[in-house]
Amino acid sequence: MPLPPAEPAGRLLSPAELEAALRDIGARRYHNLHPFHRLLHDGKLDKDQVRAWALNRYYYQAMIPVKDATLLARLPDASLRRIWRQRIVDHDGDHEGDGGIERWLKLAEGVGFDRDYVLSTKGILAATRFSVEAYVHFVAERSLLEAIASSLTEMFSPTIISERVSGMLKNYDFITRETLAYFDKRLTQAPRDADFALDYVKRHATTPELQAQALDALRFKCSVLWTQLDALYFAYVAPAMVPPDAWRPGEGLRADVAAAGEAA
Amino acid sequence: MPLPPAEPAGRLLSPAELEAALRDIGARRYHNLHPFHRLLHDGKLDKDQVRAWALNRYYYQAMIPVKDATLLARLPDASLRRIWRQRIVDHDGDHEGDGGIERWLKLAEGVGFDRDYVLSTKGILAATRFSVEAYVHFVAERSLLEAIASSLTEMFSPTIISERVSGMLKNYDFITRETLAYFDKRLTQAPRDADFALDYVKRHATTPELQAQALDALRFKCSVLWTQLDALYFAYVAPAMVPPDAWRPGEGLRADVAAAGEAA
Repeated sequence: MPLPPAEPAGRLLSPAELEAALRDIGARRYHNLHPFHRLLHDGKLDKDQVRAWALNRYYYQAMIPVKDATLLARLPDASLRRIWRQRIVDHDGDHEGDGGIERWLKLAEGVGFDRDYVLSTKGILAATRFSVEAYVHFVAERSLLEAIASSLTEMFSPTIISERVSGMLKNYDFITRETLAYFDKRLTQAPRDADFALDYVKRHATTPELQAQALDALRFKCSVLWTQLDALYFAYVAPAMVPPDAWRPGEGLRADVAAAGEAA
Repeated sequence: MPLPPAEPAGRLLSPAELEAALRDIGARRYHNLHPFHRLLHDGKLDKDQVRAWALNRYYYQAMIPVKDATLLARLPDASLRRIWRQRIVDHDGDHEGDGGIERWLKLAEGVGFDRDYVLSTKGILAATRFSVEAYVHFVAERSLLEAIASSLTEMFSPTIISERVSGMLKNYDFITRETLAYFDKRLTQAPRDADFALDYVKRHATTPELQAQALDALRFKCSVLWTQLDALYFAYVAPAMVPPDAWRPGEGLRADVAAAGEAA
C-alpha cells in the first residue's frame, strides 16, 4: 500500500524529546478531544446514541487481539513475544466468560443489546469496519517500530477512562459500575502495555527518519480512533465538522485562485 | 481478516436472476442515492464543498490502478489479464499527461487546486484513505470471484455520470466541459469493463454460496463509495444520517428492553 505523506524528518531527538513529541500528538489528536466523547462523558447523549457507541466500539475491541496476534507473529524473539502476548490474554481471557471482549459484551448488554446481535457486527457502520481494519493492516504491513508505535495511544487512555467512568456513572441512570467493568481492568493494563511500547520506541527510533515514522504511526492511530467517532457523530448526532489535518477552505489553492480571493 | 457477516445463501439463481439481484443492490445502495451527490448534481454545494469532493475523490482515482494491478496479479491466464490490464492503461495513460488520473488532476486544478497539493493527498480525510484502502485490501484478500464482483458498481455509473455532467455544467459557473473531461471517457470505458466483469461473475458464481459471495462483494463496494461521501458530507456539509444497514434505534435489543418499550 502506498504510504500516506510523512512528516519530514527533523534533527535527531533525545529519548525524552521523542517522548514529549509523542505526548504532544496525544494532546492534540487523541479522541478524548472529539465532540462525541465530550457529549458521551457529559451525559448529553441519549440512550440510543450511547448504544450506537457501545455497538460500534465492540468491533474495535473484538479486533484488538487479531491486531496483537498479527504483531506477535512479527516479533523476532521469545522475550518480546512473552510480553506482547499478555495483551491477547487480557482481551480473550483465560476461559469462557473472561477477558476484555467479554466485558465489552457485558457493557453492550448492559445498555440493552441482544448479545448475538452485537456478536454478528451486522449493525456496525462501514466506516467503523474500515477504520478498525486499517489498523490491523497497518500493523501487518509497516515496520515493527511503526506497528508498536501505533499502540501508543494507550499512553493517553487512563485520563479518558477515569473521566468516562465517572462522567457516565454520574450522568446516565442506565449505566452501572458493573456495566463499565471493562474500564476498571484497562486502568492497570493500558499503562503497563504503554510503558513497554514507549520504552521499545525510545530505544529503537534511533535516527530522525525512524523517529518521524514512529510519530506518524501514532498520528495514524489517532486517526483510527477519531474516524470511528466521526462516523458515530455523523450517523447518530450531527453537524458538519472538519477533522484535524483534512483540507479546510482556503488551503491548497492555485496561486491565481488564492490571489483572486475567490471572486469566481 | 475476519469476514463481515454474509447474507445467507439462498437457492441457486439463474444467471439472469443473479444479474437482477446485482442490479437491485445498485438500485438500493449505489452512491447516486447519497445526499452529497444529490446536492452536488443539483448545484446546491458551494465551491469549497465541490473542491472537497474533487480533492478526496482524487485519492480513489489514484488508487484504482493499484487495485487493478492487485487483481491483475491474481488472474491465472493471459486472456483474462489482457482484458483486465486495459483498466490500468485507461487510468495511467500511455504517456505523461494522459489517462484518467491525469484527467482527474485537471478537474481538481479546474476547481482551483494546486496540483502538488492534490498529489500529496495530505488534505484528504482519513476516512477517505481507510475506505479506499479497504477496497484494495478486499481485492487482495478475497476470492477472485469476489474481487471481480466488487468492480460491478461500474454497471451503475453511466447514469450517475450523465446526470453529474449535465447537472454540474448547468449549476456551477466554475465548472467547464473541459474540467469534466474525465467523465467523457468513463462513459465508454465503464460499460465495457462492467460487461466483462458481469459475464465473469455470471459464469463463475455457480452455487448459492458463490452467488451470495458475489452479491456481498457488490454490497461491500457500495459501502466503499458510500462511506467516502458520508465523510465528505460530515466534514463539509452536515446533519446526522444513518447509512444503509447500520443500526437504527429499536433494532437488536434484548427481549426485555424491547418489551419495555424503552421506559428506562
